[in-house]
Amino acid sequence: MDAAAIRAAVAAQRPMIEALFDRLRRDGLDAPGVTRDPYGAGEQRAHASVARVAETLGLEIALDDAMNLYMILPGKDRGAPALVIGSHLDSVPHGGNFDGAAGVVAGLAVVAALKALGLTPRCDITVMAVRAEESVWFQVSYIGSRASLGTLPDGALDARRIDTGRTLAEHIADCGGNPDALRAGRRHFDPARIQAFLELHIEQAPSLVEADRPAAICTGIPGNFRYPDARIEGRHDHVGLPRRFRHDAAMAGAEFAMALDSLWEEYDRTGIPMACTFGKFHTDPAAHGLTVVPGAFHFSLDVRACDAAVLAGLEQTVGRLIGSIEQRRGVRFHLGPRAAAAVGAVDPDIAAGLAEAAGDLAIPVLSIGSPASHDAAAFAASGIRMGMILVRNANGSHNPHEAMVTEDFIDALGILTRWTADTAVSGSFR
Amino acid sequence: MDAAAIRAAVAAQRPMIEALFDRLRRDGLDAPGVTRDPYGAGEQRAHASVARVAETLGLEIALDDAMNLYMILPGKDRGAPALVIGSHLDSVPHGGNFDGAAGVVAGLAVVAALKALGLTPRCDITVMAVRAEESVWFQVSYIGSRASLGTLPDGALDARRIDTGRTLAEHIADCGGNPDALRAGRRHFDPARIQAFLELHIEQAPSLVEADRPAAICTGIPGNFRYPDARIEGRHDHVGLPRRFRHDAAMAGAEFAMALDSLWEEYDRTGIPMACTFGKFHTDPAAHGLTVVPGAFHFSLDVRACDAAVLAGLEQTVGRLIGSIEQRRGVRFHLGPRAAAAVGAVDPDIAAGLAEAAGDLAIPVLSIGSPASHDAAAFAASGIRMGMILVRNANGSHNPHEAMVTEDFIDALGILTRWTADTAVSGSFR
Repeated sequence: MDAAAIRAAVAAQRPMIEALFDRLRRDGLDAPGVTRDPYGAGEQRAHASVARVAETLGLEIALDDAMNLYMILPGKDRGAPALVIGSHLDSVPHGGNFDGAAGVVAGLAVVAALKALGLTPRCDITVMAVRAEESVWFQVSYIGSRASLGTLPDGALDARRIDTGRTLAEHIADCGGNPDALRAGRRHFDPARIQAFLELHIEQAPSLVEADRPAAICTGIPGNFRYPDARIEGRHDHVGLPRRFRHDAAMAGAEFAMALDSLWEEYDRTGIPMACTFGKFHTDPAAHGLTVVPGAFHFSLDVRACDAAVLAGLEQTVGRLIGSIEQRRGVRFHLGPRAAAAVGAVDPDIAAGLAEAAGDLAIPVLSIGSPASHDAAAFAASGIRMGMILVRNANGSHNPHEAMVTEDFIDALGILTRWTADTAVSGSFR
Repeated sequence: MDAAAIRAAVAAQRPMIEALFDRLRRDGLDAPGVTRDPYGAGEQRAHASVARVAETLGLEIALDDAMNLYMILPGKDRGAPALVIGSHLDSVPHGGNFDGAAGVVAGLAVVAALKALGLTPRCDITVMAVRAEESVWFQVSYIGSRASLGTLPDGALDARRIDTGRTLAEHIADCGGNPDALRAGRRHFDPARIQAFLELHIEQAPSLVEADRPAAICTGIPGNFRYPDARIEGRHDHVGLPRRFRHDAAMAGAEFAMALDSLWEEYDRTGIPMACTFGKFHTDPAAHGLTVVPGAFHFSLDVRACDAAVLAGLEQTVGRLIGSIEQRRGVRFHLGPRAAAAVGAVDPDIAAGLAEAAGDLAIPVLSIGSPASHDAAAFAASGIRMGMILVRNANGSHNPHEAMVTEDFIDALGILTRWTADTAVSGSFR
């Protein structure tokens, strides 16, 4: 199968791709941006739209207990371990149309291109639409992918969605899933029955814009530790109180944030990848005011790094900083529940194969670490070989201004299709 | 009139004092603490309770266009400039029972003690219950006192109460006042017709607790500049975005706060009184989340100092800091409306007279600057001679844990009564 044929078959999918992105945007419209709330109306509409396209393509449809959606192109050997291509369909509130959805559309477009080329893979190719990846809703990461692998952490089913207050179990049941089966440990995927997991995702930083490349082969997914609901307890006081008498919770929060930011600046200079984000960072709206020294401060913290040892060191630093600030400012940190994700290693053979496919199609790519977490990391954590392609995107993600152009998506899709044809159809997995 | 007689007359007011504080606490109860919302149900109940006590004492009652309440003990010469003793009755949300109210109760207790002593002052003694001193509600300071003096700033009547969204004019009209007369510039007080304004207030810092004294003679009231509704505009981005691409509004806020806090620490070491408070300090609750770099940050800022030149220097520093942070972090500060209050000078003769009165009663006092702003500063700004007594209070103010003991209040009241007897009854104002 030569490069020109692959390119043509992929380019021919453009009308389907554009129509599906348009449909998904309309399904999730919630100005500004789109909201595809997991196990809610937004995600449900997206799953229905994707399933309709899969039916048009003649794919087999399956659902699991967590209502993940599987759209299967049957292989010659139905018993052979499957190649899974997918990503999630949910979004953050008022997010963009591409974060997550692009990977599902890509999976469908790959199988559509293979079918157009008249190719039947050796093994099943399963396009997976993953549920509930965006942890802002239930404050649990990789819900759908970990549910499919039987690795959902204890308590996850009892986590409450921040807006509805209902539990994950209730939400899953609302959508027709079976939370009891999940609680009993039933899983959809046996890792031994998966050849590899491939995910295409928009880049969530402008590195590709900076470098003027349409796509990147991902070299790794950062691990993180997170405190979604931390707070600082100080004392509410009058605005005129001298400094020596204060227990200012907001100032303690500011000092903590600045200390981590300074550390990050240092790491940046020495070239060690990390990031830290205080996404929520706020005084108590019920008690704050112009003339009150804040006695309570709330924050969320996400710290990430691509190296497990760096990440562990950062967590120790967080502990030391807190101790020092508590002592000097007479406040108390309550970090609350901790969540963490392991560093996600990309399979080096898959990365090399994807780079080779890009070379074959003369598509210039970068090799970069992902700035963000992805479902692929949950598959890697279960010992499944994993690879990712990142697509150029001007304005970051988790905002209404995501800007992926179709040409770049089709370039990335070409790489994924070439690699799939080489490994799952004509060649073999290395 | 000897010290023992004054002490006895003041001590005899204890039942009235305790009953009125209890009544006011019940009127404003809003757990935790009390809420006496200005030109709302809380303040209305407090005014009614105070007026009932004034009637019992046989005082004349008057109201002005802003519904400030005047309770008058007529003097021998009704045409002589009056002595005004007062403070405000409103509170912050979930505040304490004493901030403001103690000064009104003190005024009533002074006239009750004079009456008990059979003394008739040479001039009227007017106990004033001031409206709407707490600027957290309308984000305008000294509303009642400045309305009485005709010095309400332009636009104040159109300021909206943060909880109701209704304008000050509407709130004043609701309570039976006449905002049109205020808008036309009508005032209640001609400064030339006021001999002096005296205010008793709980101390809003624990300096008296630290020094183990029941009361202090105030040496001055700090001026301030304020930005009640400032915000920082950055860009919402994905949690994984590398540092160099970020426009993190919350981190810009943290850096700004820490820079002012460090400056304050320095000023403290060199003994220059100032304070800065970020009472509101928060990401946008409609948009923030664990996995979103904050693109918007809101804060209020109050900066105060007892020296006008120090205050002006601080405002210049704020401007320089903002310029530097905007440039380095790619954000934009929007400070919004600015409010300011001039430094309030205490009349040195009144301060000396109060200290003398304390000495006469063998009550050990400190001489300290007020940490906070007070209505007395509005009177000083109109050229009226002004003095203040601060009462020991363990837990600051603007919180439900204010702790003034009645013994300290009665000591402070003794000083005020002695001074009033010496100046408005038997002696003359110096």
